[in-house]
Amino acid sequence: MTFSATILTLYPEMFPGPLGISLSGDALARNIWSLEARQIREHGLGRHRNVDDTPAGGGPGMVLRCDVLAAALDAAGSRDDPRPKLLMTPRGKPLTQSRVRELSGGPGAIIVCGRFEGVDERVIEGRSLEEISIGDYVLSGGEMAAMVLLDACVRLLPGVMGKEASGADESFEGSLLEYPHYTRPREWEGRSIPEVLLNGNHAAIERWRREEAERITRERRPDLLGE
Amino acid sequence: MTFSATILTLYPEMFPGPLGISLSGDALARNIWSLEARQIREHGLGRHRNVDDTPAGGGPGMVLRCDVLAAALDAAGSRDDPRPKLLMTPRGKPLTQSRVRELSGGPGAIIVCGRFEGVDERVIEGRSLEEISIGDYVLSGGEMAAMVLLDACVRLLPGVMGKEASGADESFEGSLLEYPHYTRPREWEGRSIPEVLLNGNHAAIERWRREEAERITRERRPDLLGE
Repeated sequence: MTFSATILTLYPEMFPGPLGISLSGDALARNIWSLEARQIREHGLGRHRNVDDTPAGGGPGMVLRCDVLAAALDAAGSRDDPRPKLLMTPRGKPLTQSRVRELSGGPGAIIVCGRFEGVDERVIEGRSLEEISIGDYVLSGGEMAAMVLLDACVRLLPGVMGKEASGADESFEGSLLEYPHYTRPREWEGRSIPEVLLNGNHAAIERWRREEAERITRERRPDLLGE
Repeated sequence: MTFSATILTLYPEMFPGPLGISLSGDALARNIWSLEARQIREHGLGRHRNVDDTPAGGGPGMVLRCDVLAAALDAAGSRDDPRPKLLMTPRGKPLTQSRVRELSGGPGAIIVCGRFEGVDERVIEGRSLEEISIGDYVLSGGEMAAMVLLDACVRLLPGVMGKEASGADESFEGSLLEYPHYTRPREWEGRSIPEVLLNGNHAAIERWRREEAERITRERRPDLLGE
């Protein structure tokens, strides 16, 4: 079974974009996953296909209408579509590698890309949208957030990464940041590769890498250590 | 002066991609910012333009060579280029809206998109790269992370957002997630717009929004409240 992604957006022309290139693009071409971008505006109202309106209670910006987005969602997946329905928004739960791993083990996702000031709260409740944030910053819309989420999921699908690359995130999932990497040349601008990495003592190399990963994590992200 | 972005990547064809559409695309067309994507491989070694090699000390994957990336960096900006040099990597400091605001107030950025297992540590030190992470998950490369960072910066540049949209992130910068939004219709699938938003009492509306923002932040992101 294929990992299937459906995107609801006002900018379907953004897709596949970078998801059509490199690792996720190769996997797309090999049908390891599928991607469909749907235009929310097709469910807009009236001659101008309006999708938004002014916020109740006043204030800046425009709000995406619940009836329009619900119609777009209902058209995108059947009632028994098993895929989670995600809304990319800075108000959401922060995306983590463990949520990425869960999603990549499932049937795919229906992803709503927020725009404007926000989305009418009632469609979030009425269609059980899971609000997800990719980080504590504000984007012009949810499209790039959806790309980030999909790229993270797709690289974990079976057959996407070569075996040699699959260790890349293991240290991350162990709640440690990665240790420093070195490769040829041995000397560069007066800087050398640490001696321990060159003497072939694998136990010592393991120990050094573990200590460096712990040091870097403690310096940069004590929150990951629960400290 | 224009905000100028230079990207160092193995996939320059990913750019501008979604950055060429919608808000950031309009701003790019209006020369409010500039974007140049440079191929690291042009500085690769030998007939095959090699850019990577196996990790010192063994282990999976390949490491981007320090000499190759340094040559690409040195060719991308002069010695007195005032732009910060960023490396997108999950080991980096988490990107925040306040760092976005700082960057958007500056001359732009030179952004290295990591790939493979990592980048030789010596070029990070030798070229003073600032390591930035957009979140606690692993991507196939730094390209989408660079897009996310640039989209967040560009929307804050003068003249990019209409005045009506500019309040969007203020609640976020005040360390609170956004309150719920509502718009027409007044009733939808048995769900109503909260009464307080309909009676025109602006002080009551302000209070309700503040309380909802606090409630949602407490439920979802107590870390933002320092609790």
